[in-house]
Amino acid sequence: MEDKGRSETEIFDELHQFKMRDMTHRSGKILGSMCTCPHPVGLNAFKMFLESNLGDPGLFKGTKAMEDEAISSLGKLLGESSVHGCIITGGTEANIMAMRAARNTFKLKNPDCENIEIIVPKSAHFSFKKASDMLCLELMEADLDDNYRVDTNSIEDLISENTAAVVAIAGTTELGKIDPVEKISNICIENGIYLHVDAAFGGYSIPFLKELGYNLPKFDFELPGVCSITIDPHKMGLAPIPTGGILFRKKNFLDVISTETPYLTEERQSTIVGTRTGASSAATWALMNYLGREGYKKVSKQCMDTTELLYRGLIESGYDVVTEPELNIVAFRSDEMSVDEIAQRLEKFGWAVSISSYPKAIRVIVMPHVKEEHVKLFLDDLNRIKSY
Amino acid sequence: MEDKGRSETEIFDELHQFKMRDMTHRSGKILGSMCTCPHPVGLNAFKMFLESNLGDPGLFKGTKAMEDEAISSLGKLLGESSVHGCIITGGTEANIMAMRAARNTFKLKNPDCENIEIIVPKSAHFSFKKASDMLCLELMEADLDDNYRVDTNSIEDLISENTAAVVAIAGTTELGKIDPVEKISNICIENGIYLHVDAAFGGYSIPFLKELGYNLPKFDFELPGVCSITIDPHKMGLAPIPTGGILFRKKNFLDVISTETPYLTEERQSTIVGTRTGASSAATWALMNYLGREGYKKVSKQCMDTTELLYRGLIESGYDVVTEPELNIVAFRSDEMSVDEIAQRLEKFGWAVSISSYPKAIRVIVMPHVKEEHVKLFLDDLNRIKSY
Repeated sequence: MEDKGRSETEIFDELHQFKMRDMTHRSGKILGSMCTCPHPVGLNAFKMFLESNLGDPGLFKGTKAMEDEAISSLGKLLGESSVHGCIITGGTEANIMAMRAARNTFKLKNPDCENIEIIVPKSAHFSFKKASDMLCLELMEADLDDNYRVDTNSIEDLISENTAAVVAIAGTTELGKIDPVEKISNICIENGIYLHVDAAFGGYSIPFLKELGYNLPKFDFELPGVCSITIDPHKMGLAPIPTGGILFRKKNFLDVISTETPYLTEERQSTIVGTRTGASSAATWALMNYLGREGYKKVSKQCMDTTELLYRGLIESGYDVVTEPELNIVAFRSDEMSVDEIAQRLEKFGWAVSISSYPKAIRVIVMPHVKEEHVKLFLDDLNRIKSY
Repeated sequence: MEDKGRSETEIFDELHQFKMRDMTHRSGKILGSMCTCPHPVGLNAFKMFLESNLGDPGLFKGTKAMEDEAISSLGKLLGESSVHGCIITGGTEANIMAMRAARNTFKLKNPDCENIEIIVPKSAHFSFKKASDMLCLELMEADLDDNYRVDTNSIEDLISENTAAVVAIAGTTELGKIDPVEKISNICIENGIYLHVDAAFGGYSIPFLKELGYNLPKFDFELPGVCSITIDPHKMGLAPIPTGGILFRKKNFLDVISTETPYLTEERQSTIVGTRTGASSAATWALMNYLGREGYKKVSKQCMDTTELLYRGLIESGYDVVTEPELNIVAFRSDEMSVDEIAQRLEKFGWAVSISSYPKAIRVIVMPHVKEEHVKLFLDDLNRIKSY
């Protein structure tokens, strides 16, 4: 930091130069991200509440009311309107909160257990590895079936008296697959084990696609074994970053992860983050009320149509698509080039793709900013790079 | 969520109604918060980067460059420009990251220790209680001296072979006191223990006040025992929420808390939060460059002058001030009324004060939004409530 500050003009000129080095979603070139262009209504709502702190909710009662309404609407969307939860920073905070709730609930019943375990699918997001290190939990990885969904036999094999939680995924990070949550819910009820569903990606699209007639499985609080759900407004919910959501079926799960907050306007706090922007709640509230189910149905439908276009185009171009897309993610590879080679060649044309690890493949997330025209250009470039 | 969405006008009308129920910093009535009106330059910089995600920094290279510059500037401000760190959500995430780094470093050297301890002052922020529950650490509380600073003898008494970290505070949450960090640094070096300094509140003012001639102690990387520092741009740094900072002396401390990130544009991630707004880095960068040291000196000086005004006024009005303010926090009580009674009466006049727990007192944080005129009105009301 210099002694003397610089002029506002200089500062914003330089900020614009920094911004020029960032990629934009609008370009359609970001194909490997689960975030997207925030919707203008969400963005403007977000900007209105940048001063409000839900870490101290007594000062910001209007914002707190919006958070409560948003949580209840998300609960209703996911099969249970009387849920308890918070609008937080994203899927990672949500997943860690859920694992902490499961662990602390388990500890109350099993105070002498020294090696607490959680069972997660091999396809689980890396936030569960973080949670396992942070929360001192042994991570047991369940195998996947041929369709890259978790193998419920593998879950059953891994269950022991040390199991504090099972995780199922509704929209895996790498392939967008939905685990057989109904079966897992039954297994968890039989064994008295906490079940968390990570629907960070799928939570804002599966319910809408089902209403549109897509044949997708049950995954939410409709299933009695489900104790908590992660759902991310800043993914398919179109809210700006940071906007995540965690929903618990019972208030007790929030209580066991709460810390006393001596000097604030609430008595206990269950989120990981302390000072917490109210802008995220405003954006979530505004978008649900502005778009309604019809609006979100359109968003999901458009993404699925574009996904279908990409899927067919890849097959026509002779690429090997890993699995039929269940949600708006397509992963593919080629007999002619390695995955790294494909990624490098695409990069030369300005495409930012990401690479899945299991199986190794090019992974394209067809978020709302990826339009039909971008997919067509992408397919053209995929044909071009073959002749390099 | 309804089937049909509502019009933009309706949505923003209702958002304005929610906003009317929030208190504003501008009113000068929020006296119990460490957050403040975000500075317009920081706010506008923040708004420019709401699309950028530092959880996937390869896509947002401009934003990443700003974060790197901001971290290095914060390091320089705190005595060591070659630090390693991140712009994150706030003090809680920072403190948890530091405790995790200390724990994981300790575990490498002491793989068989089963009951890892951390020593924190009784005055520590409740985020250390969160960290202790989350990270499976035993929380050992060190006593305070008569001036509400940590008693270094108590720290020495608590040190054992299980101690993974000692925490010192530069600006306690309740009273704004600065612990004797130099002495604690020596103790930690002698005992080979990790020392973390929580300067969430003081980090953005102590260095400036020292340059202005205030007699304040050493607390930062200048002291060789200090391994990490929490510093919050969204407190005295005037940035919007969420904007926190964590600085580590050595890269190794980030490495031991990193998780592999298979599909992203960076290989490992050390923050707790995954998807992470770049807006916070932009605001931090912009404010440091716009205000410079001179600008921040003015901010700190104004807060200290207003604090002095409040302090003298309270004494003149016969209130009992708990301790002479070291930074811009004043805590007081009365012989005539209980602390709860004072708080309730002040609330009727629209003041939002908070109550400290040790000792129990009314706690006023003289943030930049609390101006001379507000303090005068507040003192008037304090005289008025006496005759109730």
